[in-house]
Amino acid sequence: MTVECYVVVHNIAKRHNVGTLARSATAFGVSELILVGRRDLNTFGSHGSTSHLRFRHFHSLSDARLFLKDKDCDICGVEITDTAMAVNQHPFKKSTAFLLGNEGTGLSAKECEICDFFVYIPQYGCGTASLNVTVAASIVLHHFGVWAGFPERSRDGSKFVVAERPERQMRRNYCSETADAIIEERKSRRENASNGFFDESGSSNSSSNSSSNLLDALFGND
Amino acid sequence: MTVECYVVVHNIAKRHNVGTLARSATAFGVSELILVGRRDLNTFGSHGSTSHLRFRHFHSLSDARLFLKDKDCDICGVEITDTAMAVNQHPFKKSTAFLLGNEGTGLSAKECEICDFFVYIPQYGCGTASLNVTVAASIVLHHFGVWAGFPERSRDGSKFVVAERPERQMRRNYCSETADAIIEERKSRRENASNGFFDESGSSNSSSNSSSNLLDALFGND
Repeated sequence: MTVECYVVVHNIAKRHNVGTLARSATAFGVSELILVGRRDLNTFGSHGSTSHLRFRHFHSLSDARLFLKDKDCDICGVEITDTAMAVNQHPFKKSTAFLLGNEGTGLSAKECEICDFFVYIPQYGCGTASLNVTVAASIVLHHFGVWAGFPERSRDGSKFVVAERPERQMRRNYCSETADAIIEERKSRRENASNGFFDESGSSNSSSNSSSNLLDALFGND
Repeated sequence: MTVECYVVVHNIAKRHNVGTLARSATAFGVSELILVGRRDLNTFGSHGSTSHLRFRHFHSLSDARLFLKDKDCDICGVEITDTAMAVNQHPFKKSTAFLLGNEGTGLSAKECEICDFFVYIPQYGCGTASLNVTVAASIVLHHFGVWAGFPERSRDGSKFVVAERPERQMRRNYCSETADAIIEERKSRRENASNGFFDESGSSNSSSNSSSNLLDALFGND
């Protein structure tokens, strides 16, 4: 049985977390980082590792779920719920996609619905209600790699060997898609523009950007 | 046997890493965060958890080592060395202080000298030579807590319960010391000022700060 590991990020609020998350994902043998909803990302903190990681985008959680179920993946929510198991108990069975909670609020009811089970990270001290989302994800991905028995990467002195940088798969800071999907997204955005659902500037801090090309606007880094 | 956990940070380069590190340290039951050398810190990312964590400062690694040996602590370097054991094998025996490598360069020869043993975190992918230092530290502290059998913190819904904020133990963003130690530090800084060893402004980006009170200058946040 070939076991694979996926990470699913749904509308991550602090885009600067994606860079460090990508660095951990590639360190721990994640096959793909799946962005649902928002697909602009800030790769600060990735130390170049995003070029070694495959990204995929879906508009909805149900589309992401269909893709993962087609690959016979369990979907595991990283969240403290009544039924959540401690991640160090390794409650895994096969290929698994880890759905991360948004910073602050954790997993929503809608996000919990697509999960097959949950893991959490035990805490012992009194000073914080939760961990940083990238730290939590990294601990979970580390444990999955140990459980799966992924072969360890070769080392050179005190560093793991980094592969040659592959051909660029995507536009910088943006998860690319097919032309059809882009047309569909533009249509969907036009429909949603009137209710203010999308932040059309791509950044609430951006005042200079008034482009009507929404995809290009989103391409901007903040 | 009461087992305790310490974290030792020596001249951490990116002070913004200390906030998230402090958050993980309090989550995983760390007794004290020990700063060696530089003692100004930026607590961004700590989410208030620094007020629940004890800080201690030493001028030299050998002073820190004496303090820890007096507490019968092992000193464990977090670094990929020839003799390092995978952290998930839990090669612990008793109270342990974890010495973290500086971002980028890892542990220096001088830092390695005070370590009793080393742990590393196995990597499986080809895209990064190492993990973010706070991520690495968090994985190690998590494993130590599991090994030590620290009692799990009680929860309220999907969050761990945070204690009342204690009385402030230190000046904001600064690890406090006794009056004697401050006088000694001022003397030491005056002696070192001529060789440029210390960045007297507390930040290489600070151009407006020309205070002659070095401690107050260091107090500044960047």
